[in-house]
Amino acid sequence: MTEVAKTQSPRIGIIGTGAIGGFYGVMLARAGFDVHFLLRSEYAAVSERGLQLNSTLHGTVRLHPVQAYARAADMPPCDWLLVGTKSTGNVELAPTIAQIAAPDAKVVLLQNGLDVEDSLREHLPPSLHLLGGLCYIGVHRSGPGIVEHQALGRVNLGYHSGPAANDDTHRQAIVEAGAALFHQAGIDSQAMANVHQARWHKLVWNVPYNGLSVVFGTGTTAMMADESSRELIQALMAEVVQGAHACGHEIPASYAGQMFTMTESMDDYLPSMYHDYVHKRPLELAAIYARPLAAAKAAGCELPRMQALYQALSFMDRHNR
Amino acid sequence: MTEVAKTQSPRIGIIGTGAIGGFYGVMLARAGFDVHFLLRSEYAAVSERGLQLNSTLHGTVRLHPVQAYARAADMPPCDWLLVGTKSTGNVELAPTIAQIAAPDAKVVLLQNGLDVEDSLREHLPPSLHLLGGLCYIGVHRSGPGIVEHQALGRVNLGYHSGPAANDDTHRQAIVEAGAALFHQAGIDSQAMANVHQARWHKLVWNVPYNGLSVVFGTGTTAMMADESSRELIQALMAEVVQGAHACGHEIPASYAGQMFTMTESMDDYLPSMYHDYVHKRPLELAAIYARPLAAAKAAGCELPRMQALYQALSFMDRHNR
Repeated sequence: MTEVAKTQSPRIGIIGTGAIGGFYGVMLARAGFDVHFLLRSEYAAVSERGLQLNSTLHGTVRLHPVQAYARAADMPPCDWLLVGTKSTGNVELAPTIAQIAAPDAKVVLLQNGLDVEDSLREHLPPSLHLLGGLCYIGVHRSGPGIVEHQALGRVNLGYHSGPAANDDTHRQAIVEAGAALFHQAGIDSQAMANVHQARWHKLVWNVPYNGLSVVFGTGTTAMMADESSRELIQALMAEVVQGAHACGHEIPASYAGQMFTMTESMDDYLPSMYHDYVHKRPLELAAIYARPLAAAKAAGCELPRMQALYQALSFMDRHNR
Repeated sequence: MTEVAKTQSPRIGIIGTGAIGGFYGVMLARAGFDVHFLLRSEYAAVSERGLQLNSTLHGTVRLHPVQAYARAADMPPCDWLLVGTKSTGNVELAPTIAQIAAPDAKVVLLQNGLDVEDSLREHLPPSLHLLGGLCYIGVHRSGPGIVEHQALGRVNLGYHSGPAANDDTHRQAIVEAGAALFHQAGIDSQAMANVHQARWHKLVWNVPYNGLSVVFGTGTTAMMADESSRELIQALMAEVVQGAHACGHEIPASYAGQMFTMTESMDDYLPSMYHDYVHKRPLELAAIYARPLAAAKAAGCELPRMQALYQALSFMDRHNR
C-alpha cells in the first residue's frame, strides 16, 4: 500500500477511467500530480470506495478520496487530458474535451489504431494540442474502480495536430513534457518524432493479438504455445511492417521479433478486444484494421492476411451484438 | 415412401455408412443395385431398423432389411466400393478395402481434399482401380441410420491409379461406367479427365465454407448474408483458383461465381467440418488445406488467406480435442 501525496501543477484530467485511464491516472496521482477523473457508470462506486490498482510491478496502490466527477461541466480546466475511452466514440467526445481543457491544453489519446485523432480533431478548438499515446501495457478492469496491472506500462507519445504543428521545436517540447510527466510517475515513455509511425509500431502488436484473441477466444499464452498460431502471428506482424513501410514509416527489422519475444515472456494476457467481444461491445476494427488497410492500399500495398482477419472480425462483431 | 427392388450386378459395397455413404448407398439400392453396407457403431441399429433417407429431392426412402455387416470379413466381394469415411483414416482403411474388393474392383473415394488417394494407394493391391469422387451435395446424419438430404447430389469422378493408369481408353471407360451407375440411381455424375483437376474444383467450395463454418460457428446462410464474410469467401475462392492454375489445372473464370451463387440459393447448410468440430473429431485439414497449400507452394504460388485460415483452424483443431 502506497501513500498518495498531492500537489497542484500541472492539472491532469482523465477521461474514461477504465483500465488504461485508471492505471495512468492513479500512477500520476501517486506521484503527486493533481489528477481529476471523469467517470460515467462507475462514478458512485469510485466516489465512495476510491480507485485501486493491483500491480505486479508497483504493488497495491489505493487512491481515496478520488477527485471524481460525473459531469464534465463540474471539472476544473485541465492542462493535460488523458483520454482512455474506446476510439469508437471519439467524435462524440469532442464537446466533453473542449469543456474540460485549459486554453492551451494537451490532449493525449491513449488509444490503439491508426488516425484515431482525425475524427476528433475537426471537432476540437484549434487552440488545443492533440497527441497520440501508444500504451505498451497489460492491464484490465476487474471491477468498479479496480484495475489489474499485469505487465509493462510504457507510453510512446507523438504530436498529432494543433498550434505547434508547424513548429518542430515547440512540438518536440510538448511531446517531451508529456514523456516527462510519465517519467515522474515511474512510467517509461518515449517521445516519438511522428505519431503515425508510433501508431504503426503499436499495430505490429495489436493487429495479430487483438484479432486472434477474438477468433480463438484465448489469451496470449495459448497463442504463443502453438506452432500454427505462432506462424500466423508472425505473418501478420510482417504484413503490418510491410504496410508501415508502404506508408513511409520504417519499422526496424528486429522490431516484430522483439514484440513476439516480449509477448512470449508475459503472463497470459487477454487483449482489450477480447474483453470487448465477450461483453458484446463494438470492436475497434476501424482504428486497428480498416484504416491501416486503407492507408496501405492507397500506397499500393495489399495485406491479405490482415484483410482476411479484418473481414472475419467484422462478421463476428456484427453477429455478436 | 419408395419401394426398393433388387438385382445382382454389379455388386456395390459401401464403406462408412454416414451421411455420404448412406445417401449414395440407399439411392443405388433403390435403383435396384445389390448394395452391401459396412458399419461400425451403427450396425445394430441399422440391422434392426434399416436405413432411412429423408430427401428434399427424392422424398423419404426407406431401405429395410439392409445388407449390413459389422465385419469386412463377412462381406461378399464387391465390384464397386464407395468409401464415405473421413480422409483422416485412409491408411488404416487399406486392409478393409482389400478384403472386400473383387479382383478388379473399382474403389471410389467419396472424400474432399487433395491427394486423399495417395496414402491409401500404396497399401492397396495393384489390381484395384482407385478413383476419386467429388460430391456436390448437402447431406447430414440426424441419427443412427438416418440421413437428411438437403440439396444437390452430383458426384464427379476421376481415375486416380491402378491397372488402367496408362490406358486412356480403359481409364475413361471405367470412369464412365461409374458415372453410369450413379445416373441409373437418378444422380447427376460427370466423368472428369483428371482427378486432381476435379479435386481442385471441389476445393473452391470446401476451402472457404468448411473452414469459415468452424471459425464463425455458423452455416452458409449467415455467411452469405454479411458483406465482410462474402468478400472473404470470394477472396479465398480466388486463391484456390490461382493455386489450381499454378498446379496446371485450369478452372473456368466463371466457376467460383457459380459456386458462390449456388451456395446463396441453398437452404442453410452446415458443412461437414462444422459437425466434426462440434463433435470434437479431427478436422480434415491435411486434405483440404495443407496438401493444396503445399502443392501450390511447390509450384511457386503463395495463397496467404488460405494459409492464414489453415493456421487458425490448426490452432482451433488442437485446442478442441
